[in-house]
Amino acid sequence: MQLLGEREPEIYGSGSLADMEKKLAELAEKAGAEVEFFQSNHEGDIVDRLGAARKNADAVILNPAAYTHTSIAIRDAVKAAGIPVVEVHLSNISDREEFRHRSVTAPVCVGQICGFGIKGYELAFQALADRNK
Amino acid sequence: MQLLGEREPEIYGSGSLADMEKKLAELAEKAGAEVEFFQSNHEGDIVDRLGAARKNADAVILNPAAYTHTSIAIRDAVKAAGIPVVEVHLSNISDREEFRHRSVTAPVCVGQICGFGIKGYELAFQALADRNK
Amino acid sequence: MQLLGEREPEIYGSGSLADMEKKLAELAEKAGAEVEFFQSNHEGDIVDRLGAARKNADAVILNPAAYTHTSIAIRDAVKAAGIPVVEVHLSNISDREEFRHRSVTAPVCVGQICGFGIKGYELAFQALADRNK
Amino acid sequence: MQLLGEREPEIYGSGSLADMEKKLAELAEKAGAEVEFFQSNHEGDIVDRLGAARKNADAVILNPAAYTHTSIAIRDAVKAAGIPVVEVHLSNISDREEFRHRSVTAPVCVGQICGFGIKGYELAFQALADRNK
Amino acid sequence: MQLLGEREPEIYGSGSLADMEKKLAELAEKAGAEVEFFQSNHEGDIVDRLGAARKNADAVILNPAAYTHTSIAIRDAVKAAGIPVVEVHLSNISDREEFRHRSVTAPVCVGQICGFGIKGYELAFQALADRNK
Amino acid sequence: MQLLGEREPEIYGSGSLADMEKKLAELAEKAGAEVEFFQSNHEGDIVDRLGAARKNADAVILNPAAYTHTSIAIRDAVKAAGIPVVEVHLSNISDREEFRHRSVTAPVCVGQICGFGIKGYELAFQALADRNK
Amino acid sequence: MQLLGEREPEIYGSGSLADMEKKLAELAEKAGAEVEFFQSNHEGDIVDRLGAARKNADAVILNPAAYTHTSIAIRDAVKAAGIPVVEVHLSNISDREEFRHRSVTAPVCVGQICGFGIKGYELAFQALADRNK
Amino acid sequence: MQLLGEREPEIYGSGSLADMEKKLAELAEKAGAEVEFFQSNHEGDIVDRLGAARKNADAVILNPAAYTHTSIAIRDAVKAAGIPVVEVHLSNISDREEFRHRSVTAPVCVGQICGFGIKGYELAFQALADRNK
Amino acid sequence: MQLLGEREPEIYGSGSLADMEKKLAELAEKAGAEVEFFQSNHEGDIVDRLGAARKNADAVILNPAAYTHTSIAIRDAVKAAGIPVVEVHLSNISDREEFRHRSVTAPVCVGQICGFGIKGYELAFQALADRNK
Amino acid sequence: MQLLGEREPEIYGSGSLADMEKKLAELAEKAGAEVEFFQSNHEGDIVDRLGAARKNADAVILNPAAYTHTSIAIRDAVKAAGIPVVEVHLSNISDREEFRHRSVTAPVCVGQICGFGIKGYELAFQALADRNK
Amino acid sequence: MQLLGEREPEIYGSGSLADMEKKLAELAEKAGAEVEFFQSNHEGDIVDRLGAARKNADAVILNPAAYTHTSIAIRDAVKAAGIPVVEVHLSNISDREEFRHRSVTAPVCVGQICGFGIKGYELAFQALADRNK
Amino acid sequence: MQLLGEREPEIYGSGSLADMEKKLAELAEKAGAEVEFFQSNHEGDIVDRLGAARKNADAVILNPAAYTHTSIAIRDAVKAAGIPVVEVHLSNISDREEFRHRSVTAPVCVGQICGFGIKGYELAFQALADRNK
Repeated sequence: MQLLGEREPEIYGSGSLADMEKKLAELAEKAGAEVEFFQSNHEGDIVDRLGAARKNADAVILNPAAYTHTSIAIRDAVKAAGIPVVEVHLSNISDREEFRHRSVTAPVCVGQICGFGIKGYELAFQALADRNK
Repeated sequence: MQLLGEREPEIYGSGSLADMEKKLAELAEKAGAEVEFFQSNHEGDIVDRLGAARKNADAVILNPAAYTHTSIAIRDAVKAAGIPVVEVHLSNISDREEFRHRSVTAPVCVGQICGFGIKGYELAFQALADRNK
Repeated sequence: MQLLGEREPEIYGSGSLADMEKKLAELAEKAGAEVEFFQSNHEGDIVDRLGAARKNADAVILNPAAYTHTSIAIRDAVKAAGIPVVEVHLSNISDREEFRHRSVTAPVCVGQICGFGIKGYELAFQALADRNK
Repeated sequence: MQLLGEREPEIYGSGSLADMEKKLAELAEKAGAEVEFFQSNHEGDIVDRLGAARKNADAVILNPAAYTHTSIAIRDAVKAAGIPVVEVHLSNISDREEFRHRSVTAPVCVGQICGFGIKGYELAFQALADRNK
Repeated sequence: MQLLGEREPEIYGSGSLADMEKKLAELAEKAGAEVEFFQSNHEGDIVDRLGAARKNADAVILNPAAYTHTSIAIRDAVKAAGIPVVEVHLSNISDREEFRHRSVTAPVCVGQICGFGIKGYELAFQALADRNK
Repeated sequence: MQLLGEREPEIYGSGSLADMEKKLAELAEKAGAEVEFFQSNHEGDIVDRLGAARKNADAVILNPAAYTHTSIAIRDAVKAAGIPVVEVHLSNISDREEFRHRSVTAPVCVGQICGFGIKGYELAFQALADRNK
Repeated sequence: MQLLGEREPEIYGSGSLADMEKKLAELAEKAGAEVEFFQSNHEGDIVDRLGAARKNADAVILNPAAYTHTSIAIRDAVKAAGIPVVEVHLSNISDREEFRHRSVTAPVCVGQICGFGIKGYELAFQALADRNK
Repeated sequence: MQLLGEREPEIYGSGSLADMEKKLAELAEKAGAEVEFFQSNHEGDIVDRLGAARKNADAVILNPAAYTHTSIAIRDAVKAAGIPVVEVHLSNISDREEFRHRSVTAPVCVGQICGFGIKGYELAFQALADRNK
Repeated sequence: MQLLGEREPEIYGSGSLADMEKKLAELAEKAGAEVEFFQSNHEGDIVDRLGAARKNADAVILNPAAYTHTSIAIRDAVKAAGIPVVEVHLSNISDREEFRHRSVTAPVCVGQICGFGIKGYELAFQALADRNK
Repeated sequence: MQLLGEREPEIYGSGSLADMEKKLAELAEKAGAEVEFFQSNHEGDIVDRLGAARKNADAVILNPAAYTHTSIAIRDAVKAAGIPVVEVHLSNISDREEFRHRSVTAPVCVGQICGFGIKGYELAFQALADRNK
Repeated sequence: MQLLGEREPEIYGSGSLADMEKKLAELAEKAGAEVEFFQSNHEGDIVDRLGAARKNADAVILNPAAYTHTSIAIRDAVKAAGIPVVEVHLSNISDREEFRHRSVTAPVCVGQICGFGIKGYELAFQALADRNK
Repeated sequence: MQLLGEREPEIYGSGSLADMEKKLAELAEKAGAEVEFFQSNHEGDIVDRLGAARKNADAVILNPAAYTHTSIAIRDAVKAAGIPVVEVHLSNISDREEFRHRSVTAPVCVGQICGFGIKGYELAFQALADRNK
């Protein structure tokens, strides 16, 4: 399982990102799974990684941040990956600027979770774990 | 905690609705919480119930089904309730007809979970439980 | 067979509604069918009745009046009913205000008849009778 | 004369709703008129009541709250009622969310008053009283 | 009475077009009426024929097929004809591509019937026969 | 208090404008207030006057007529005036041409009254009088 | 010089079309010019005729009637003709249905005259005559 | 008869404006009419002048230049004037920027002439002269 | 194989159209195929010819010129033909006026080639020849 | 050089407007230039002044305030002036209401500076000074 | 000559990409030309490569895949390259999702070929070869 | 202080980019500041650099070129940087293609300067210098 996303500046510096990685790693261990983390501000890197996930991952938790609203390239990569991808957003994007209401990538994901902060990644993990049973 | 929603015909008749109610009741019991279930095809009933929830519930899991896309009345009731409300959809609404992409109610909920079938209610319960700790 | 619809004030008081019910009942009798009439101003009532029609009716003639243009709930109920539904409008809705030109419910009905006054119900009955031969 | 509207949660609990009812009743008494109050969260109830008003009221003060922006059914009921209806809003709806700027019901009312809180009902009463002289 | 329309390729070759013509001719005979059939892929021909219908027909059943959605010329010809015209579509156009939802010609017809295949022409005949009584 | 607006030709010549000025002056006198009247077809004059009102008026009743729908300059002047401004329209602008439905100036006024003819100015006066108590 | 246009039913039967042809012929004679008249309901005929006009006419007065609002083919033919074309409309198209406000052909004509009935053709003739001096 | 319009800088300095005034004055003299010329860059001045024209003119030739596309005030003044107004544009506004294609004032004028330079005023004069016979 | 299209004035008169026909005929001969050429300014003729092509052609190269952007009739005819159709445009339509960017017919063709002048027909021929191997 | 603009109420009363005028006058003096200041709430005055600037100024710094978003008249006057005009806004108009994002006048100016308060006028002066070297 | 594009996952793994490269290399050899292949998921890489192509290539065959619909950066790079660029799409993009119908990059290319699979690159090669003769 | 932007091909090769860097470096030296230059065609690089600027720069001059109109990622990075950012464009983007009129990034910058060529960077430097005093 992979956790992909744009680097989100608003959670840098605080301990929360590291905490979340640790939390998810524990959850994965209990479930007998492995989790890889990857963050980049480069749309192309995320596309590349999704291309690779097709071969070496069973599922992906994806937070495309700003690219959510514009990246057809990530959308196509999700579709081509052929494995379940869950879209996660820290904030409730419906309650932000108009241009953040539309997700280009959500239609090709299995589901979307937003508004619960980093807790959302944990919920996504459970949703995927449950799917694979 | 309350679970409100329009009656969704596609899950009638099968055992799944009952199962989900049982599952949520167990989860609630473990967490020392109580859950009430309510379903109606009447927009006004859902508005009434949200009005009542303000006094007798700590949180609401809401699946407004078809009303998601049109009901400003439910939106206003969610806002007036003044307690956390999580919006859940069984299907990935971004992958359905254009008119289902926009949620009128989501901007006033704390978050949204869609695409995971009835598992979504369980995830919503956890999200809310976590919030209240 | 059921005839569902919002109560339409413009035909109250006159004898025409009763006449039409009588006419349809006669037509039904000749065809060895039964017709039930139902009118309500509550979107939820119409949704409930369509839910019930799934079990106790072979077809529905539906005049959603004002709800034609906004009710995704009725649309979903028509789709879930799984029986042929014909949409009827007394007036030619294309020749009225712009917002009446679009029917939210028509795409999930088998067909639409509009502009022929209460004669339209009779035409709808024949269309359905013919279908079931 | 009738005062119809959706129950508006933001004024529940406070004494203001009762005060306003009392104030209007006094005004009516002075003017030799009677006022009835009715509130419901059900679009269909408001439609029913407008249908009844045709026979037993001379005028209606209407606050359709959230239904202002979506209810063609209430619009049609206002038109069918055939008596003067004044639309009142507590807040200045032009200064709220974009989707509250458009009133579906206003074009068939005689006039609209918004932004003066419950004082608006009093102004509406005077506007109607003046009309009937 | 005249039946005008664009040649519709999807019903060529099969016996159904001939059958329908025969059926309508019989219906017309019973009603003491005459029916003429005309089909062309030329917008101008349909306009010409509607121009002629003004003088030699009492009513027209019109299936403008693809021209339904674009032809202001046919619309103007229907209006200028000054006799009742009923618009018929074999399929339920509301359930097809977005650009087929709008009918340019329907607003000037007396009514519209769609979704009942060639049975629609029969229903249109009855609607017109009934009108002329 | 000031009454500002574009000269409205449809009420010239008749005695009604003068009557209304007299009526308002009486109302003002009873309330211990003074009213000034000002009309111009020049957008800039209305802007200038609103600029002056900031210093020499407690409130403004504004009927921007045609400028209602286009004048950002008047809108900015209302906002800059920093005193309560009530927008009045003689007719029910929601029931006129589409381009008259939107008011550019209403969002920065305290409220809007429309559809009651010159009676509307009287209602506006009361609304403002009430506000200042 | 040629006068091209769709046959306009509303002026058939009356003497006015013939009168106008006569009037224009006289005007042309005085100016030492020749006028040809052509009317068709076929978009393609008008396109053909404009193609021919390139060789045998100095200018064209064009009334594309319903095709005004949709025909890119006529527009391209006007442009390809390479001679001055004046667009004439009997009625003031700005004061009719929304879809008649836009002219697809006007941008490639030298000018447009509308609202003066058949007098418009005479004005167009003068405009062209003046141009060629 | 009056000729109203915004001062159009592109024809200042050249002799053409004076020439045109002279030409129109001659035409008017022959027709036993009087023409007044008025130009202003102030929307309000044009509105004032149209208000005055109601009393002292039989018809108006109006070139609202830039105000054509935005001025509801001029539109309302044209309508209130109650005399025939012809809209003239020197250039073919359909062939300029998108925002110049729509005329706010044309729907209330009797007709529109554009694309013939100052010759257009002459044509407008004839159109009006002809109307008044 | 057939080459259908609207007559395009800009290539008349020059030798290029004849050259292209000769070139394509040679290519066809080499490939053991036959090519027929057809051009008309009548939408209906192109529709008729596509109807015929269903029986007597293996593929069609189509240049609908101006009809590209408006003709649903040609679109439906392409679909009904049931043989591969390639759309060709001499110019790069994406680099022309906004209204030429959308092709109504392209979605039902197998592919589209534009911007290469008459060379485009040759490329289309090869694309189709290759398809049929 | 001229500095034109709508009077902006938010900077009245404070010393800043006078300061800015002094600052610009000093800058101008150093550069051997003269600056004139002009402010009006009348769109027509600004148009008039731009007309005059054509003859007596080398460049203009323009702050059309509210007129920025609606005034085609000012736009045409800028274009007709034939001298470089720089548009300045005190605030960052992209960060205000949606309707302030579009500038009608900017496309015909040489450039635009916004968001730097009255410092923006100084920057505009330098930009123009630099241009003229 | 260069072949640039986003890596397209749907053709990975199969031999077809390699085959196409071989085929194009052979074609190039026959034509005495050289072809370079480049694929990247990074918009910036494609922009860089187009920048380089300006100096070391005579023409470019470009398949921007998902970036076709959003990348103004690639568009600007194509324009700046100053050499002929042909846009190729494997699928018929007009027959896919709405958002794929618009190509941001096509207007600055010499032409577009879509719907012929990898055969499209060969056609593009010929189109370019022909151009350079 | 940092100067960030997409590499702009139209100024490559000429000496102007180097000149501007030198000019800005001198200005910075006088002001006791340091300037770093950075250009990339990679949206992600610009995002990364803005992320870094948060720590090692006091302000940024940003020319996002083509990314101006599409990059929500750069917008978010500007906002997260928490230091003043000034947007500069060499050309007057309001006078270019429609899609260049909207800036996604401008709303989160302190201001915008466009249309003055590389002189714009100098003005931006002064605006920022002035801000920090």
